Amino acid sequence: MPREIEFHFDFSSPYAYLASTRIDGVAAKHGCTVRWRPMLLGVLYKSTGYHPLEQREKRRYMLHDVARCARLYGVPFALPSSFPESLLAASRAVYWIADQDPAKLTGFVHAAFAAYWAEGRKLADPEIVAELAAREGFDKPAVLAALGDPVVKDRLRRETEAAIAAGVFGSPYMVVDGEAFWGNDRVEMLDRWLATGGW
Amino acid sequence: MPREIEFHFDFSSPYAYLASTRIDGVAAKHGCTVRWRPMLLGVLYKSTGYHPLEQREKRRYMLHDVARCARLYGVPFALPSSFPESLLAASRAVYWIADQDPAKLTGFVHAAFAAYWAEGRKLADPEIVAELAAREGFDKPAVLAALGDPVVKDRLRRETEAAIAAGVFGSPYMVVDGEAFWGNDRVEMLDRWLATGGW
Repeated sequence: MPREIEFHFDFSSPYAYLASTRIDGVAAKHGCTVRWRPMLLGVLYKSTGYHPLEQREKRRYMLHDVARCARLYGVPFALPSSFPESLLAASRAVYWIADQDPAKLTGFVHAAFAAYWAEGRKLADPEIVAELAAREGFDKPAVLAALGDPVVKDRLRRETEAAIAAGVFGSPYMVVDGEAFWGNDRVEMLDRWLATGGW
Repeated sequence: MPREIEFHFDFSSPYAYLASTRIDGVAAKHGCTVRWRPMLLGVLYKSTGYHPLEQREKRRYMLHDVARCARLYGVPFALPSSFPESLLAASRAVYWIADQDPAKLTGFVHAAFAAYWAEGRKLADPEIVAELAAREGFDKPAVLAALGDPVVKDRLRRETEAAIAAGVFGSPYMVVDGEAFWGNDRVEMLDRWLATGGW
């Protein structure tokens, strides 16, 4: 079994987007797989009683910083006018796709991140999510039906509760060999951890 | 005039300690000076209504992470049994020393950080602070008198208010050429910013 990088995230997290553009490279370098584990960051923040964007100065810094990091990495970035917002449908789709055809999941995740963070598309709209999934080879009506399925909805709720119970407190939150790395900032350290086996 | 790195911090911040062990090297590489700007993080957190250590999972992660970073950098680290606590006297001493003999300030700052974060000394005690300043060449009774001086006390309060007003929301918070870098994580990016002139 290849080692697995658990990647806990919410599509609405700009730092998760930044990390998502770099994590596949790190995983490939070390022969790891990435396990995409979306969650509802709003529910998580409610459980901790803390939301970073509620601090005016931190919010200002973060929005400036995300754009600065994107320029540094050379990845496209445009703050959506509707940010922040709940992006439930895309996260629900991730768990559904993982069950249907896991080989198509990474393509969908990157397409969904890019749609929201680079292409100005309304990712909150299930129609857009279904269209993105269709491009990966899924049947669009089937995806739309799944997104409205109580079982699929419940799955995301349960995954969110499990993440909170496991100690996840932000996005992205990456775990390898039981070692946690919080934030896009820590992709380099995760890379080093994988290369050295820890220290 | 050499470029200046403003280094906003509280001695009680473990990430400030970690960054303090690295910032002189970055400054020297680019011919910059470091301007040490202690503040009262407790006052700042009260003003923002947020204290990171109040989140149990984040606290657990941070304490694990600080030790992990220290091992990676090869810097001594031992979590003080009294952490977290207010370290007013050392911060008051910084502004006093900066006025008295700025050439001795960097030595004092590193000695104070090490006393608390590596040597298990009671930095909250003005006697210890005065002893550390005395080792840098100051008269110990004069330091003790200064630490109790209302003018010196007021200086730290005013500096804290100024930092909050300037948008500082955490520790360490570094500024160069008007560009802010928050966290020990960002020392490398600050280094790159200085090397390239920004991007």
